[in-house]
Amino acid sequence: MASDKSDNCLGWAARDQSGVLSPYKFNRRAVGKDDISVKITHCGICYADVLYTRGKFRKSLYPVVPGHEIVGIVQEVRSDVRGFKIADHVGVGTYINSCRDCDYCDDGLEVHCANGIVTTFNSIDGTVTKGGYSSFIVVHERYCYRIPYSYPLALAAPLLCAGITVYTPMIRHKMNQPGKSLGVIGLGGLGHMAVKFGKAFGMKVTVFSTSISKEEEALNLLGADNFVVSSDMEQMKALDKSLDFIIDTASGDHPVDPYISTLKTAGVLVLVGAPSEIKLSPLKLLLGMVSISGSAVGGTKDTQEMLDFCGIHKIYPKLEIVPIQSVNEALERLIKNNVKYRFVIDIENSLK
Amino acid sequence: MASDKSDNCLGWAARDQSGVLSPYKFNRRAVGKDDISVKITHCGICYADVLYTRGKFRKSLYPVVPGHEIVGIVQEVRSDVRGFKIADHVGVGTYINSCRDCDYCDDGLEVHCANGIVTTFNSIDGTVTKGGYSSFIVVHERYCYRIPYSYPLALAAPLLCAGITVYTPMIRHKMNQPGKSLGVIGLGGLGHMAVKFGKAFGMKVTVFSTSISKEEEALNLLGADNFVVSSDMEQMKALDKSLDFIIDTASGDHPVDPYISTLKTAGVLVLVGAPSEIKLSPLKLLLGMVSISGSAVGGTKDTQEMLDFCGIHKIYPKLEIVPIQSVNEALERLIKNNVKYRFVIDIENSLK
Repeated sequence: MASDKSDNCLGWAARDQSGVLSPYKFNRRAVGKDDISVKITHCGICYADVLYTRGKFRKSLYPVVPGHEIVGIVQEVRSDVRGFKIADHVGVGTYINSCRDCDYCDDGLEVHCANGIVTTFNSIDGTVTKGGYSSFIVVHERYCYRIPYSYPLALAAPLLCAGITVYTPMIRHKMNQPGKSLGVIGLGGLGHMAVKFGKAFGMKVTVFSTSISKEEEALNLLGADNFVVSSDMEQMKALDKSLDFIIDTASGDHPVDPYISTLKTAGVLVLVGAPSEIKLSPLKLLLGMVSISGSAVGGTKDTQEMLDFCGIHKIYPKLEIVPIQSVNEALERLIKNNVKYRFVIDIENSLK
Repeated sequence: MASDKSDNCLGWAARDQSGVLSPYKFNRRAVGKDDISVKITHCGICYADVLYTRGKFRKSLYPVVPGHEIVGIVQEVRSDVRGFKIADHVGVGTYINSCRDCDYCDDGLEVHCANGIVTTFNSIDGTVTKGGYSSFIVVHERYCYRIPYSYPLALAAPLLCAGITVYTPMIRHKMNQPGKSLGVIGLGGLGHMAVKFGKAFGMKVTVFSTSISKEEEALNLLGADNFVVSSDMEQMKALDKSLDFIIDTASGDHPVDPYISTLKTAGVLVLVGAPSEIKLSPLKLLLGMVSISGSAVGGTKDTQEMLDFCGIHKIYPKLEIVPIQSVNEALERLIKNNVKYRFVIDIENSLK
């Protein structure tokens, strides 16, 4: 696809499975009557961006402009838009369309739309959708979220995927009860948000990590109550049947049974990372009446609620801001888990 | 242990890992002030009886008198007993003691007692507990259940383990909603009870089986609505995202992912069988927000409720009644899955 003079949007795209991103001009659709046009100020970098730009998950529709942790400022609204006006601070997450007609859509659970969602990039919605590594985006207002004016826009970006991914199951499984205990496996973009939400809910939070090197930050920077090196059998044994909930954010293959043993009777382990396979001892689940539950991002209702909650409680992700020119290096570092705890691209000041 | 003249109870016991049962006399404790003495009329044969008599699960404390699906008639009560009187029909299930002091006991969830339960056989409660392949049993009244007089005693036996094992998670996960859809994996002692409870709750029940030979009975004898051969990919595909719940009663190792695909968004698969390991694709759990939950028998509150429910709705297990003299053959047939659907020993008429 050669760019021509109708191209109105500048982004960065991967052209093939090398995954190397470079500047790319393309055309955003005209703003429809229910749409808003958002000048993008920041976009978070999610591991999905690695997978799709490198053709490692489903079919990549190159050129791939990734990015689904989008925040920015409304620059245009059309006649039927009710929820937004010019200059509003808004977010766009992992999907930008759904059927709006099924039970799930009716319940604000659009992400589980019975007829399938249109993801923010690498999906088909007339043309191939293009994500937030770009100067602006046009989206039906239903799939946009209000960001409180007092909330720094850069910090809001990771909430649109990492944040909602852990917030949704925490609400669904009623973790927001002061005094309950939560274990968090993995301390990346998702894990560090789970710690922050857990503390905001009044929970007692234990961080499980493979590396003692994360202890100081887990306790002092993120405010966790307890830190356990998961390979230390004595520390693990001391947690036997002590936790109400676990959120497992680890994407690499890892044993799950040792964590199950730390759950109380009727405890719940929520998987939000996606290892290739997990193996379980059913007897542990049976005797402890334990549940393992999956969860993926969240509906529009929960997403707005989460953003409002973060605004009220001043829950801020920890991040490294990078210019778009450093995006290839950032993706490489993300693969090596070398980020604290989320990269956010400063689109506004670097994408020209 | 040689029997002496103080031995007051005749049972059948396995003496070693051969698992062969033969007559064995032993002493039941005196009836304490909170106890009732139950003349056993019938005892169901559970797969646990195979495991413990053959030394295949935990440590077997020979001689093992198995049996934890016990029904009978009260023959003696002592001063402090409030819930039972002589001639009452009663059941005793898989456990006969707990601490009675923890949160779980307080909630009628004694089976999850924080301090551990005393199982009905092969456990230590002063002496080694001995199960229902015997002429009578002495039990604290808390761990005994009323069986409605109108309910045939033989038929009640399988409810005390097989019945409560499927009833508990059905109530816990709110399956008792007319119109909801249930899949049942495996059509043995547990599976056939899950079908019956499902129909009594007004659910639409699909039976999954590896063998087409079970179709006629599943539909016509047990009243299932649908029968699917689980190896038939076309039939499985037709069920894609159609079920609210699945109860997996299969004890042999089997793939779980194909069943997960038949669950609706937020569906729940309950494991009640105990394969050695299960392997899962986390992505399927994530995208469908699916839960996998374990469950094991049930508390005293649920057990009594289940028995009352079976009485009111005339829910009767299907069984084969055998004399105690055929018990070794019955255990062999159970191992081969050659029983429709539960063996019950006619203790009253054959144990002399």
